[in-house]
Amino acid sequence: MPKLDLDTVPERNTTGYPGSYADDVAGRFVRRIGDAARLADFGASHVVLRPGAASAQRHWHEEEDELVVMLWGEAVLVDDHGRTPLGPGDIAVFPMNDGNGHRIVNESGADCAFLAIGRDGTGVVHYPDIDLKWNGAADRYEHKDGSAYD
Amino acid sequence: MPKLDLDTVPERNTTGYPGSYADDVAGRFVRRIGDAARLADFGASHVVLRPGAASAQRHWHEEEDELVVMLWGEAVLVDDHGRTPLGPGDIAVFPMNDGNGHRIVNESGADCAFLAIGRDGTGVVHYPDIDLKWNGAADRYEHKDGSAYD
Repeated sequence: MPKLDLDTVPERNTTGYPGSYADDVAGRFVRRIGDAARLADFGASHVVLRPGAASAQRHWHEEEDELVVMLWGEAVLVDDHGRTPLGPGDIAVFPMNDGNGHRIVNESGADCAFLAIGRDGTGVVHYPDIDLKWNGAADRYEHKDGSAYD
Repeated sequence: MPKLDLDTVPERNTTGYPGSYADDVAGRFVRRIGDAARLADFGASHVVLRPGAASAQRHWHEEEDELVVMLWGEAVLVDDHGRTPLGPGDIAVFPMNDGNGHRIVNESGADCAFLAIGRDGTGVVHYPDIDLKWNGAADRYEHKDGSAYD
């Protein structure tokens, strides 16, 4: 059936962030609906943020366009432009290589959810606020100087 | 700004459907936000359907994955499985080459809106109910036998 029954899509609460960088996403629950539906052209993830949780550390992609649409609840987009409230139906786009570190934070007292469109694991991802870089070619997180995390 | 102001994105009400096939989409208003935001990895269109309007003639793509998420209002997904109501936050996916002709119809008395993710103009699009085919290589609509529309 084309209409998704989210209960049939596995929900994951993991992250590859090293050490304490993982703390901000401890309340992030992701369903990879693109994989579940065998989509090849793009990825699609349904993300629920518990109160206090963030979508990610603030980041931008060299080689991946991202689009986010809020589904329910309230969140705040934090990026180089400041803080922007997001509510149901709001759409935000992050063209590849824009250099605008961004993330979505649930500062409300209730869960919120969004749908994220993009691709996976490609290229380099920059994290302007912390000593972290995603090296897509090596498929690993690194320090900004390129050295490995233990 | 990453958060989209839809009022800044041109709205179009055109179709390339020949003859009376255009009638069903007369109340369809499309904003191509992927183009406006210079996204390259995928296309994204914000679509408003007036009461009685359809998203398209019922169709399926040989070479394009599609994903739809309802933003507001109520609609009905019509496909080979029958009729499925869609409301805000509902997500439907149409993997390429699935052979499942689909469209979204606004049978309510008020406008509705959805976001559609996909690509543009690629491959062949089949229309099971009518004498129509999209020929991506030739960039034109054709009769099912491959002959041109006048």
